[in-house]
Amino acid sequence: MEKENGAKPLSEVEEMTERWHFGHNKAAAAAGGRSIRATLSKVISSVDEKGPRPLIPLGHGDPSVFPSFRTTPIAEEAIVEAVRSAQFNNYAPTNGVLPARRAVAEYLSKDIPYKLSPDDVFLTVGCAQAIDIVIAALARPDANILLPRPGYPMYEARCTFYNVEMRRFDLLPDQGWEIDLDQVEKLADENTVAIVVINPNNPSGSVLKYQHMEEGVFGDVVPVLTLGSISKRWVVPGWRLGWIATTDPKGILRKTKVVDSIRSILDITINPVTFIQGAMPQIIEKTHDDFFKNIIYVLRNASELCYNTIKGIKCIACPHKPEGSMFVMVKLNLSYVVDISDDVDFCFKLAKEESVIICPGSVLEMKNWLRITFAVEPASLKAGLERLKSFCERHEKH
Amino acid sequence: MEKENGAKPLSEVEEMTERWHFGHNKAAAAAGGRSIRATLSKVISSVDEKGPRPLIPLGHGDPSVFPSFRTTPIAEEAIVEAVRSAQFNNYAPTNGVLPARRAVAEYLSKDIPYKLSPDDVFLTVGCAQAIDIVIAALARPDANILLPRPGYPMYEARCTFYNVEMRRFDLLPDQGWEIDLDQVEKLADENTVAIVVINPNNPSGSVLKYQHMEEGVFGDVVPVLTLGSISKRWVVPGWRLGWIATTDPKGILRKTKVVDSIRSILDITINPVTFIQGAMPQIIEKTHDDFFKNIIYVLRNASELCYNTIKGIKCIACPHKPEGSMFVMVKLNLSYVVDISDDVDFCFKLAKEESVIICPGSVLEMKNWLRITFAVEPASLKAGLERLKSFCERHEKH
Ligand SMILES: Cc1ncc(COP(=O)(O)O)c(C=O)c1O
Ligand SMILES: Cc1ncc(COP(=O)(O)O)c(C=O)c1O
Repeated sequence: MEKENGAKPLSEVEEMTERWHFGHNKAAAAAGGRSIRATLSKVISSVDEKGPRPLIPLGHGDPSVFPSFRTTPIAEEAIVEAVRSAQFNNYAPTNGVLPARRAVAEYLSKDIPYKLSPDDVFLTVGCAQAIDIVIAALARPDANILLPRPGYPMYEARCTFYNVEMRRFDLLPDQGWEIDLDQVEKLADENTVAIVVINPNNPSGSVLKYQHMEEGVFGDVVPVLTLGSISKRWVVPGWRLGWIATTDPKGILRKTKVVDSIRSILDITINPVTFIQGAMPQIIEKTHDDFFKNIIYVLRNASELCYNTIKGIKCIACPHKPEGSMFVMVKLNLSYVVDISDDVDFCFKLAKEESVIICPGSVLEMKNWLRITFAVEPASLKAGLERLKSFCERHEKH
Repeated sequence: MEKENGAKPLSEVEEMTERWHFGHNKAAAAAGGRSIRATLSKVISSVDEKGPRPLIPLGHGDPSVFPSFRTTPIAEEAIVEAVRSAQFNNYAPTNGVLPARRAVAEYLSKDIPYKLSPDDVFLTVGCAQAIDIVIAALARPDANILLPRPGYPMYEARCTFYNVEMRRFDLLPDQGWEIDLDQVEKLADENTVAIVVINPNNPSGSVLKYQHMEEGVFGDVVPVLTLGSISKRWVVPGWRLGWIATTDPKGILRKTKVVDSIRSILDITINPVTFIQGAMPQIIEKTHDDFFKNIIYVLRNASELCYNTIKGIKCIACPHKPEGSMFVMVKLNLSYVVDISDDVDFCFKLAKEESVIICPGSVLEMKNWLRITFAVEPASLKAGLERLKSFCERHEKH
């Protein structure tokens, strides 16, 4: 710890580098590798920066930057009021402020056959933190979790990080991306601690049939943890407000101490911004239905355009028209192209030649599929799909 | 997965409870137990709810709810502008938006002999997430971290959670809470990956001597990770905006891939709210010095009052007048009291009899010490200290 002046000889730095047993944390590296963000950054880096045309981002699902998807002024003003009140500058309680939990409980109760209480709700820093907390709470040696393929890589990342075994069941593209229930039954065993159901599904865009939901999610014994956020419906992913809600009619999550684990983790973890929690009752109660209807209208038109354009391209196919979500999954048929080796190669070349970003299916465990978001400004979507089409035509066999 | 109607016999629920290998996640439970929040909740629960006097919270350091500590309108209006601009509703880049990183880099560069670049800064969800990320990045089998005693329990909680060995060095109360450097040298070995220095210290309120800083923190080889947030200086802990900054003149953190680990973790982790990041340049650049001066003035008066009142109480002693921070550490002398067994007992009885909350030292690894915050509204502080005094007098030997 002695202070010396002047530059040290390099060898001392080397010695110090050697002596400190650092190195890239393996779990973190493996988990980070399972990230759409990390993958898309790499794809973006192959865009020709000197290219004359603007980049069109059909990779990430974040429409909030586009005018057509601007959130409602009601939500913005609820934030303004909360921050100016100076009543919400403090640390929040670990499970969230009560009026916000009550508002979320009422909001969720509209869609399920139970009435949730505010104490069934834990507020989180977006749905991403909800995933983090739930997987940490369920993690134990030998535990496994059943995950959908395709799915949302954050689940994979967190299972990797907490060392939980992942078992994947397929969503069946030719059956509207329904869950392969036979496979689920075969994969589940006495160490299975959870099955993940994403509805509406990201990335397939399918919506579970009510009957399917009834058989699983609405069961009156099986406890359910519902993870969600305002990111998508209010188009504000940057606001980081989500939740974990427990529906547990028989108290199994309490008896098995899963709820205790969630509480313990919340005790040491960060909470959503307090004034955004403070704004939640207004955001939820005052937003007009028209806002949601308009967003859905824009999305539906975008999804039609996407689906129809893809129909006219030989080397890619969309087995199922999306009903919800912001994405469509598209199958790449390699036998129709000449100089593309796989989905990753497709995305890199598309980025380079057309400045269009889409997400390779590999990062979702779907090799030779592509995930395309249609939740962008309509004019950009049109331009992006045209570029995609001419790219494909250029690389197709004749 | 079959749906049946009506109540199930209890045995099936029991069987299911049994079959699912849940249970309270041990690491989470142990980590959660190391939380000031969890401890203070227990202390608060022993307050006599029917008592005639309001609760006075001298446990947690969160003055933001008090009028004397209201944040500057400049910060509030920066948020209002950012949210109304609709430019920051989107997901942020994993390391944070560039103008915010630039503002933080410039802000931090004022106090150190280096000029930080925006790329040295990673924005986090408050300092709490900075601690989480850094400990996860440094964690590996056999690693140990040197932690100050007393310290901030979040470090302990995260080391427990990530299974990193903790070794504690003492801050010496009779030497102005200076670091026991001899002890540090004895504790450090080839598996030591970090030493934690908290300055100004929470909870001791001491400020490291510049010479001490020079010997350690300003070394020109040893890499330093600086963790911080706007929580304390702007009195907005609920805004959850913090940072990790690397000062690493010889590039050791890069060479040893610690920076890669931080990046990988950021790739799968949550970010601070984007519009608060968007407001950061204004918050940092426009806040008048008068705001800070006034807060420091209020805190200094409060700390004087606290120190002087404690001087007049027999069974507790304050070895060092706080120079920074919002806390004072006070030693409990059990030989002067009749019916109090330790610090925890003291805090529970004080809560019950006087509706005053203070934090038992045990949660900071300081048995038979007490942590008192003076960062509350001056009138409450005065009342709280008077109640503390009469409580002590009632329990002292005569
Ligand atoms: C299935 C799924 N889960 C979680 C998330 C993350 O949500 P949030 O932005 O609220 O963290 C997304 C976002 O795309 C998602 O599609
Ligand atoms: C030493 C120390 N580190 C971290 C924190 C947490 O800071 P933040 O509120 O920014 O998460 C605190 C808050 O009291 C603290 O005293």
